[in-house]
Order: sequence, then C-alpha cells, then structure tokens
Amino acid sequence: MKRTLLSDLKRKKEKDQVLLNGWIHKINNFKNFSFVTLRDRSGFVQMIVEDEELLEKLKLEISVEVKGDIVLNEKAPEGIEVHVDYLKVLGKGEYDLLPFAINGRKIDASLEKQLDYRTVTLRRKDKRSIFKIQQGIVEGFREFLTKKDFSEIHTPKIIGSETEGGSEVFTVDYFGQRAFLAQSPQFYKQMMVGSGMERVFEIGAAYRAELHSTWRHLNEYMSLDLEMGFISDEHDIMDMEEEMMKHIVSKLKSEYREELDTLKVELPQIDKIPRIPLDKAQEILLEKYDKKSPEGNIDGEGEKLIYEYVKEKYGSEFVFLTDYPKSKRPLYTMPKKDDPEKTNSFDLIFRGLEITTGGQRIHDYSFLKERIVEEGIKPENMDFYLETFKYGMPPHGGLAIGLERLTMMLLKLENIREATLFPRDINRIKP
Amino acid sequence: MKRTLLSDLKRKKEKDQVLLNGWIHKINNFKNFSFVTLRDRSGFVQMIVEDEELLEKLKLEISVEVKGDIVLNEKAPEGIEVHVDYLKVLGKGEYDLLPFAINGRKIDASLEKQLDYRTVTLRRKDKRSIFKIQQGIVEGFREFLTKKDFSEIHTPKIIGSETEGGSEVFTVDYFGQRAFLAQSPQFYKQMMVGSGMERVFEIGAAYRAELHSTWRHLNEYMSLDLEMGFISDEHDIMDMEEEMMKHIVSKLKSEYREELDTLKVELPQIDKIPRIPLDKAQEILLEKYDKKSPEGNIDGEGEKLIYEYVKEKYGSEFVFLTDYPKSKRPLYTMPKKDDPEKTNSFDLIFRGLEITTGGQRIHDYSFLKERIVEEGIKPENMDFYLETFKYGMPPHGGLAIGLERLTMMLLKLENIREATLFPRDINRIKP
Repeated sequence: MKRTLLSDLKRKKEKDQVLLNGWIHKINNFKNFSFVTLRDRSGFVQMIVEDEELLEKLKLEISVEVKGDIVLNEKAPEGIEVHVDYLKVLGKGEYDLLPFAINGRKIDASLEKQLDYRTVTLRRKDKRSIFKIQQGIVEGFREFLTKKDFSEIHTPKIIGSETEGGSEVFTVDYFGQRAFLAQSPQFYKQMMVGSGMERVFEIGAAYRAELHSTWRHLNEYMSLDLEMGFISDEHDIMDMEEEMMKHIVSKLKSEYREELDTLKVELPQIDKIPRIPLDKAQEILLEKYDKKSPEGNIDGEGEKLIYEYVKEKYGSEFVFLTDYPKSKRPLYTMPKKDDPEKTNSFDLIFRGLEITTGGQRIHDYSFLKERIVEEGIKPENMDFYLETFKYGMPPHGGLAIGLERLTMMLLKLENIREATLFPRDINRIKP
Repeated sequence: MKRTLLSDLKRKKEKDQVLLNGWIHKINNFKNFSFVTLRDRSGFVQMIVEDEELLEKLKLEISVEVKGDIVLNEKAPEGIEVHVDYLKVLGKGEYDLLPFAINGRKIDASLEKQLDYRTVTLRRKDKRSIFKIQQGIVEGFREFLTKKDFSEIHTPKIIGSETEGGSEVFTVDYFGQRAFLAQSPQFYKQMMVGSGMERVFEIGAAYRAELHSTWRHLNEYMSLDLEMGFISDEHDIMDMEEEMMKHIVSKLKSEYREELDTLKVELPQIDKIPRIPLDKAQEILLEKYDKKSPEGNIDGEGEKLIYEYVKEKYGSEFVFLTDYPKSKRPLYTMPKKDDPEKTNSFDLIFRGLEITTGGQRIHDYSFLKERIVEEGIKPENMDFYLETFKYGMPPHGGLAIGLERLTMMLLKLENIREATLFPRDINRIKP
C-alpha cells in the first residue's frame, strides 16, 4: 500500500484503507480507547486506537507507520478519523521529558532553549510556518528576477582580499595563507554585470564578524543580492525593488494564507513607496519630532519616527531614504552629478528598520581607481576587481536584502534568530 | 525611447527607430562605412555606421548606447541591420590590447589566463553558454524537488565541529575560537528531516581543504543536497535521483537548445539506470578487463571501465554502484540488514566519473551513538546532532551532487574550473 499524506485524507471515502506516516502529536486516553493525533509534513489527523498492545507502544513525538480505515466524523477536528488496526514504531523516543510541549497552544521556553532544540521547536506548526513563508520570499525573489531576465550566479565566499573594508571580517586559514569570508558578493556581482550577463542575482551566505549581539544582527546570514547594468541612475534600482516587493507580498498573500493565519500576521499593502532625500528626512525629524540625527545618517530611533511619519502621511509602511553623503557610503558608490558630496544611493526602511542598502556604482575605470587611492587603499589590492572596469563597464547598480531580517519584519518577530534555522552569533555556534 | 533587446529586433519593421545597449563585438571597415556588430545579453546585431566622427569613438568591447533605423536585409547575419545615427560611449575601453579575442572562432588563451580574466572570458558566447546551462541544472533540480514537496533550506557554513571528519577542513577564527567551514550540510539536512520537514534540499557552498589540485576537484563548490524521511531503503533515494536526472536532462534539451548547439553537446539518454553491487562490479572489472580494484572500492580507471561496460551492455551512460563496505563509508551510513559489513549506500557514476554519493542513514539513537564511539569520537562532540535522534527520527536517506562536476560531465568539459565562475584551489584564490 502506498503512503497517503494527511492533507490528502479529505479525498478518501468511509472505510477506505490507508497507510500513514508521521509523528505522534497528542494522546488522549479514554476508558476503552484513545484519541491519538498524528502529524506529518502536510497536516494532522485524529486516530482511534483501541488495542491496548498498540497503545503501550505509544509515546509523544515518536515516528510511526500506521494502517487503518477511514471513518467520516463531522465532530473530528479534520472531519475525518482513522480507525487504527496496525501500528509500527519507526523512530523511538529516547527521552524522559520533551524539552517543551509541541502540542501546547504556546511554546513555553526561552528563545535560547528553542534554538538549542531547533529540530524539536520546528515540529510546532507556528515555528514551522516562519520558514515556509521564508521559502516563499526566496521563491518570490527568484521568480520575479528570472522573469526580468536576471541570471542566477554563485560566487565564492572564500576571498583573498576584504571586499567591504572594515574590521568586521572573519579570517580563514587557506593552506597557510590568510583569507577572508565574503561580507557580500558586491565585487563579484558587479564583475558579472560587466561580463555581459548584465543582470544577475545571488542568494548566498554573507559574513559579518560584528562583535555585538543584537536582536537584528547575525554573523552569518542569507543575502538576497541583485545587480543590473545599463541603468540611468539609482531610481531604476528602486523601481525594480518596489515592483519586486509587491510581487513577493502578493505571492505570500495568495500562496501562504494558511501560514500567515497561523502566525496571525497582516502583510503590508504596497503602492508607491515614497523616496525622501536623507537631509529632508533629517529636517522632518527635527521639525516634527524635535529629533536630532547624527551627521549624514539617521539612527534607530530616527528610522522608527520617519516610518511613523511616512505611514501617517502617505499610508506606506516602506520608505526609501536617498542621497546619502559620500562619506557614509562605500568608495564604489556613484556621486551625484549636481552635488558630488552626495551619492546616488538609498536605504529601504520597512516598519522602522533598514532592510536594504543599494545604489548606483561608479563604472569609470580611472575614476574608480582615483576613489580607491583617495580612501588610502593600494589599487594593487583590488586589481582583480578594477581589471573589469577596463573593458567597457556599463552604468550599473544594485542592492542587497537580508533574508532573515526581511522575514522578521514581515512577520513582526521580535528577534532575527526566530527567522534563522541555525543562527550564528558571538555566543552561538551550535547547533 | 525605451531600450530594445537585440533578441527582440526581429519583431521590428523597416525604418522603425530603436535604442540599443550593448558592447562593440566586431568592427569591419569599408571605404565609406563600417559594419559594427553589437552584442547584448540576448544576442547580436549588425550595424551600419557611416559617420566618421562616430566611428572614431569605437573600440572593441566598449559599452554603448545607440539609436538608429531598422533596415531589413536578408544577407545580414540576423536578417536585419541597424543604420546608426546616434552613438554614445557608456563604458570606455582602457586597455591597449584585449587579453584574447572575444569575437574569434576559438579562444586563444590558456585556462589559467581565461580564469584570470573571467569577466572578459564570459563575453564569449561559448563560455557564457556553460553557465546558462548550469543555471538550467539548478532550476531543474529545484523545480523537480519542489514538485515532490521538498522544502528548500539554508544551513550554516560556519560550524563548531567537523561534520565529515578527516583533515580536509578549513578553519575559521570565530571570535578567537577555532571553527570550521562545513564540508557538507549532512548533519543539518538530517536534522531538518527529523524536525518534521521530512523532505529537504539545499543548494549551497561546501568546502574541502584538499591539498591536491586536479581537473575534477575544487576547494569551494556548490553542493546540490537532498534528504528525505520515511523511506524503505536506499533504493527510494536512487529512484528519486533517476527521475530527477531525467527531468534535468529533458529540461535542458527543451529549454537550452541554443546553448547546447553552441557547445556542440549531445546530452545523454536516460532510461533505467543499472544498479550494480560494488563487489559484482569489481568481479566484472577483473573478469572482463583484467583490472584489479582496491579493497572495497574501485579506482578512477575502474570507474571508466565499468562505464564502458554498462554503456555497451545496457546502453546507459549512468550506473549506480551499490552496497559499499562499512569501512569505506561515513559512520552514519546504514548497514545492510542481511550483511552488516556492507551498507545501504551508493555512488552514481556518469561517463566514468562519480557525480553523487548517497545512501540510507542510521536513524536509531542508541545505534548511532554506538557507531560514534566505535569510530573513536566522543559523543559529546556530536551532541547537537545526536540530540535529534532522541525524538522519533524516521528512516531516512539522501544524496549530494557536485554542481560544477555535473556541469562538466554533461558538457564534456576538460576541467571542472571551466564550469566554475571563480574557482578556488590550492593555487588560486583570485579573482
């Protein structure tokens, strides 16, 4: 007999014989029988077990193979029950107590404990839903960009020189040589635009050796990167992101309804995302909220306030902040034509937190080399990158989105670790 | 005016005005005009440039914006020409000589040089085609598994303990602590099966600090991994791989015809892939080819000969070798019920090279712990992995395919580096 998934049971008729696989989710003992809830990857079903010998084998969370007959019963949670006549234990339970209840309404454990027992945590429908939705985000990103003729690339994470500068980089012993873990695929995605691919995206790991441990940072995270050539300026990139976000959110709303309901989450409505120059945003913060900002940036509190402002004024939960000063952006950022101390760059703020950094890049070889020297870096150390710019590099730009951060913000989670299967931070390298 | 992709020019009519972007691929000067071939991500077109001032701006491989009129001309390579009246250089050419010709019939440069100038190499249609097809392989893998209800996962590559053992592991300085780069997602994908996901796949980097540099090894590569629960034995995994390979090859044949033609490649025909126990294969090698094999394995020459044998006898370019001895497989491999010195494991050999290793894994907690001790490892060092097995781990198994290796073998390339954008080996960490 072939296995039936629990989600397919609804197509069965009274007295049909079925073979099921799954885990024992709940056991309710009555005088002459027990209600036993079985769980598999697709759903749940209530089973009736009368045989005492079978019942003795049962323990919560063991995995089993079951045979039985379908009993239609309107009162059963799924409208159907399975009357069990055969049960085999596939995976035993070798624990005294579960670390926390899987079948309770809420999880009764600290986040730390949940992460320590990741494989147990994910057996809960609510926790599992987070990652189903995350998969939907990734699929939406890929689907949208593939339609827009982007090519998917895979670039190395072991690199010979630091890409983004700064001290926040992990070092690798590469056959006795000092190498680094890529902080982003920045240089490589630009190079692939220049190779003639024109439009590329990558879904890959990025590494930041940040010494602080916060609710919104990870030391290893999935970066959703894109880069495209033959653009006019950074507004082409923002247009692309706006349309992409609409696609992702509408995909989630239509294909992940059940998971969104499980998590009781309301996804944002996206129309036109306002674009506000940074200095204008700083002015608004000062005038409306008496909030001072650091030079050439706004801080965490400022991000929250500008979100409140935009939400109230434009009805948008997203806002692009644009025209960041040169001093606050990486050296490869394109300066503004009419105001070279500012740049063709942007951040996307969603519900008060930055989820994207992007912009137009410099594409002129001599100018880029000049900027490298200006920043005190030896051009030889960037030769492999610079080389690309000798061969007709087109105007281009791109952006990066942190997948776990976007997931957290869309689902209104409290900590980015909830949106990461196996988070890495300064205190955690296990499991 | 909006940009027209070169592949869309065929829909245009005589005298239509178009705006094009791309790179200067070829220049043929005649007395009163020049034929200039433009290349973009979608194709080529021949342009007629008469204006001498425009012509003076031209240099091979610079990127440009062009405006002109459509001229239908049966004699032109694409049946159409563009009569240029406006040309703007977007990205200059700051080189004296190209490292090698982009527009020649064959590439005149060593593989080393091609890799040094990766972004120039990829401007050639033949080199670019390799990665288009590679993207097709990845899409086929993902598409097939998603339909089979697998979930896509992303697991950490910085890990606290070595997963596969052996000395071939890169070390990372993790905030002063010694950490490692994952040699595979093995433990994590098993854990995710146990978490209730049941069926998972990952497309991610894997790291092997192998000290030798060969045509078929990389130190960083993309691993196509899958793992599934509630299986009967390793034959369920082989069934899945067989069906998946058929899907990938048929997808490539239908959607990547142009690239396959460019590379003059014939893809294999896949019907039933023969499954031969390793000791039987060794016997065949000895009897038919007088070829001796190392204990419990066959060597590179043996792989080639067994491929020849299977191809002749069964008409298959693929062969599964099964039932490897326990001593040659990782400790988590499930021993055969009726012959516990052998295991429920397999390799897939394609055209004489191993492209997959897979099998059924041990799912019983006590037995796995016993095996760990037997191998001289302290169970504490694997506690995060072992923990999962206490909570009803179902029978499960999986496999891993090296993406670059599969690409190389499908396209009959000579070196795995040709199928890698930026290969990493003991001598190469740049670009």
